[in-house]
This record gives sequence, C-alpha cells and structure tokens, in this order.
Amino acid sequence: MTPTILPRLCATALVLVMGAGAASSDSIAEYMDFFEPLPHLPPIPADNSMTPEKIELGKMLFFEPRISASGVISCATCHNPALGWADRIPRAVGHGGQVGERNTPTVLNSGFLESQFWDGREPDLEGQALGPIQADIEMAMTLAEAIERLKEFEIYHEHFGAAFPDDPDPINQQNVAHAIATFERTLNTPNSPLDRFLRGDVQAMTESQVEGMKLFVDAGCVACHNGPALTDSNFHRFELPGSTDEGRFLVTDDEADMFAFRTPTLRNVAVTYPYFNNGSVDNLHDAVQLMGQQMLGQDFTDDELDKLVDFMHALTGEMPRVEIPALP
Amino acid sequence: MTPTILPRLCATALVLVMGAGAASSDSIAEYMDFFEPLPHLPPIPADNSMTPEKIELGKMLFFEPRISASGVISCATCHNPALGWADRIPRAVGHGGQVGERNTPTVLNSGFLESQFWDGREPDLEGQALGPIQADIEMAMTLAEAIERLKEFEIYHEHFGAAFPDDPDPINQQNVAHAIATFERTLNTPNSPLDRFLRGDVQAMTESQVEGMKLFVDAGCVACHNGPALTDSNFHRFELPGSTDEGRFLVTDDEADMFAFRTPTLRNVAVTYPYFNNGSVDNLHDAVQLMGQQMLGQDFTDDELDKLVDFMHALTGEMPRVEIPALP
Repeated sequence: MTPTILPRLCATALVLVMGAGAASSDSIAEYMDFFEPLPHLPPIPADNSMTPEKIELGKMLFFEPRISASGVISCATCHNPALGWADRIPRAVGHGGQVGERNTPTVLNSGFLESQFWDGREPDLEGQALGPIQADIEMAMTLAEAIERLKEFEIYHEHFGAAFPDDPDPINQQNVAHAIATFERTLNTPNSPLDRFLRGDVQAMTESQVEGMKLFVDAGCVACHNGPALTDSNFHRFELPGSTDEGRFLVTDDEADMFAFRTPTLRNVAVTYPYFNNGSVDNLHDAVQLMGQQMLGQDFTDDELDKLVDFMHALTGEMPRVEIPALP
Repeated sequence: MTPTILPRLCATALVLVMGAGAASSDSIAEYMDFFEPLPHLPPIPADNSMTPEKIELGKMLFFEPRISASGVISCATCHNPALGWADRIPRAVGHGGQVGERNTPTVLNSGFLESQFWDGREPDLEGQALGPIQADIEMAMTLAEAIERLKEFEIYHEHFGAAFPDDPDPINQQNVAHAIATFERTLNTPNSPLDRFLRGDVQAMTESQVEGMKLFVDAGCVACHNGPALTDSNFHRFELPGSTDEGRFLVTDDEADMFAFRTPTLRNVAVTYPYFNNGSVDNLHDAVQLMGQQMLGQDFTDDELDKLVDFMHALTGEMPRVEIPALP
C-alpha cells in the first residue's frame, strides 16, 4: 500500500528514525511523513511580541463582558473554554439572543491558521479579535465605547501600561487586538494521540486509528487537511445541503470563490461539533461521509467511516489550563 | 468607646485570647467579638453529603449551557467566576437578552445563608438551583427537557452514577439540584483581611479599616450584618428609590413583608457591585450612605463613609480557584 499523494511536509528525519524497523514500520513511517506534531507555539508576528504581561491582559479581555453592549457577552461566551473554546450549537447566539449565520470556530490552535473566520476575511488573530466586538449580532459595541469602558477601571490602566510600556496612551483598539491575539496564541492543544504517535509512541493510537490515518492519506483527505493544524488554510468550494452562504465570494467578489470556505482545522474535531459553516451536521460520522462525497467523490464504507472517525478522535489534544481571571 | 449593641456571636474565646493586652487591645477585642471568621465550609445538609464526585458533577452542571433553551446560558453566565460569581450589571440579562427585575446575588459563601434569593423564597441551595433553569427570562427550560439533554451525553451517565451510586436512575431533577448545591458550598472566600485580623493578625487591616469596623458596630450596621457571612438572613423593609419591587411580600402575601428583602451578605461586597435588589447603586460609598439613612436614620459624614467603605474592602476574601471543566 503506497500513499497516493506525495508528502508535502518535511518529516524526512522521522522516516530515517522509524524506517529501520520491519516492513510495516516502513509503511507506517511513509504515512507519518504526511503529518506534523503540533509545535509548542504558532508563529508570532514581528510586531506583536508575546510577553507574559500581554498574555495576562489578553486573558482578561477575552473574558471581559463589559466590552459588549449588554455587558454580558465576552469572547468566552461563544469561545467557551468548557466547550472546546467554541459553543457546540449550530450557529452562534449573540446580542439579544440573535442567531448568527455561521458556526463558531474554535480558538484552539487558531494561531496556526493563515487566515481567520470561515471566509478568511482577516489575515491574522489581531484582525479577527475586533470583529465580534463590533458585530451587531455578536457583542454589538463600538470600539470607541469599548475603549471608554475599559478606561473606567484603574486595573486596566495598570495592565495595559505593563503590556505596552512604550505606549503613552496604551488603552486603544490596536492594543486590545494585540493582547487578545497574544492570549489566543497560547491556546494550543499538544500531545494528542497523533502527536505522541508521530513522536515514536506507536501505542498512542489504536490499531483502528492507525488504519484511519492510512485511509485519511490514501483517500486524499490529507490534500487539504495537512500541516500542524491539519488545514491548508486555503479556500475550497463546498456546497453544504441547505446552506445558501456564499462564503469567500462575499469577501473577494470573485465567482471562483462562490461557496468557498477555508479548510477548517481538524485538531480537536471530535470535541468541536457541530460541523461545517452553518453547524448543520452534528456528528463526525456524517461529516466525514459528506466530505468524502463532496470533496473526493467517494462513498466511504461503514468500516472506512468508523476508522476515519477513530482517527479524528486521535486529534484531540490536551486542553490549555486557563485560570479564570478576576476582573475589576 | 463601648459598643452600643450586645454581642450576638459566641466569640468569647477570642476575647480571652486578645483581652490580656493593653487597653486598646481590650477595646478592639470587644469589637471583634461581634464578628466571626469565615468557616472553611458552610453547614452541609444531612441528606446531601458533600463528596468529591458530587462536587465535580455540580461544577460541570454549573458551567453547562445545554440545560438552557438557547444552549448558551449556564449558571456561570450570570454567576460569572470572573466577576465575583455575579455579573456586575444592575439586573440580570437572560434568555433572548431579556432583562430581569433583580440584581444577581453572588454565589460566593451562599451556603452560609439561611434562605436563598432576594426574597428568601427557597430555604436552601438545593431549592435555589432549579429556579433559574426554569425562569422564562433566565434559562427558559423545562426541567424535563434539561434532564433529557443531559441524558444524551454518556459522560453524564458516568458522573451522575458516580455521584449518586445508590440511585438506579440518577439523572434526575433532585440530583441536578443536589450536585449544583454541593459545588456551590465549596465556593467560599476565606482569609479576608477581617478574617486574618480576627485570628490575631492585627496588621491585616489598615487603621482606617479598624476604625470602620468600630463604626460598623457603633452605628448599628452589625445588628443585621452579622454572623460568618455578615447577614442575619432575615428580611427587612427597604424602600429603594425608584424600585417598586414588593420583595418578600410576593412570597408571603403578608403586609408586614412589603418591600422587605433578605439582608445581603457583605462578604466580598467590594467586588460584587452594583448594589441592592435592582442594582441601581453602583458604588459602595452611595450604598453605605443610603443604608445609614434608611435603616439607621443616620447621615454618615464623609469621613465616616470613607472608613466604613474601607472596612467593606477588608471583607474581600480569597476567590475560589476553579478550573473550568471540560464538558462533553
């Protein structure tokens, strides 16, 4: 059995380490070559240094509901740490109970994505962070008012000053975005069974998960779901039954982007249901089946679906341990 | 200077320990006699044993939004751990953005209260726990549907089974209430400056806080705000300017209870603003002034208000360290 897609990832060292074993080890090593253990941290922008002070401030802001119009919605409302840093409902519920158009993506490992939001309309977490604060159906605030509210608290003057010591007027929009993005870059989930497996712990995945991994490569899933976050960060046309969301087209106005969405990360996919842009599919079995049909023109057998779903469960890593901040 | 109200609390031992010092110590010891350090735990009902399994389950349920109609509101939404286990807005915002009639009381130290809710309509935390789940303007669920949702998750079958091992069908309303109440009884805030002061650490409170403590006794505040949670758990008529809430009368239909509310705890009062049944007063200075006028017929001077407010700050204890549970 030979992988049908050429390795994109540089994991030659692993092959050298693993390749000296029996024939089956050689074979598994070839498959492993398609994957990459999650790095400890994602890339950090040159203009937004990751300091402990900024992480701490970003955490406060992430949990801060006073930057919403109602005073009760924070980033953590939809990106709920108890629910895989997402909300586990089809579409987000925001200001005044309004229901949005799209499913809440998890914040976990989002620093590894090359663009943000389902339609990739922001290039980075700094750009993403200010969107939901201002969205009418989410937190429904103006940034100016959010900044004013923060300025009412002496402790925020201290924390912004510590996080941005060179800024004479540090409580501002850019710094809110930089702090939240910095905190989010710490929300990664290392040591999933796949990660441990890739590091040589061959018992970390079950036999069925290993079979699922092979199938994931052979069937071509890995063509889009690759890299440390198992996404190519590219946009692919995907017509979800029942969805009229034009996706990336709304950003680019390019017909080629009609119904295209950014490939979602598969990290922690087992705990970040429901699936797809409108959250209309609530279990992995159906989600994988639909992907096979739509993206690969392939009807997986029940046995194949079971193995692929088992492999998806091997992508659940260790959740970040975040202590809830005491807000002023 | 002699306290004008007879000690209600049994703290004779403290007086004996402290009383051997100088005259000023004697005097302070007399005042200290009116207070009581927060015990490690509140009373635990004979029919609801506090087990680690029940605490863990109760924590999960406390953070569980799927027992609300929208799927996004949990106990922790209004009793937000980041905000003193309350919400720091005047009146609670619930289902569909509806605004309730009353201010959210903190869960902190609520196990020390002899009744629950502003109007005391439930005798204990077990009775309280099921109220907000069913309230139309809060979580807006039927208990039957909440139970059905919990039953969908295998992990809840395990956790309810572990918490209630003798119950053949453990996922039920009573056990939801018992588990949440058990978790809540762990949310206490020991080691406030007052607590340390009462235990002999005379430097734990500032001079102004000590003066505030004396004034608190001399002026008569302590008549209602006493016991470990600084509340008598009794109901007192209080006509808040602008409030038409009939309070305890709505529960008892007794004219004597018109506009009466249960004395709120003063533990952590500095971090559980805004104040009073409709949350219309947002700072301690004004709250203490109003209390002096309404309950004691007394206009405190600015200096007195400053000292009393300083003393209020000595009632902020250590927040419980709660790790956010991973929900299914």
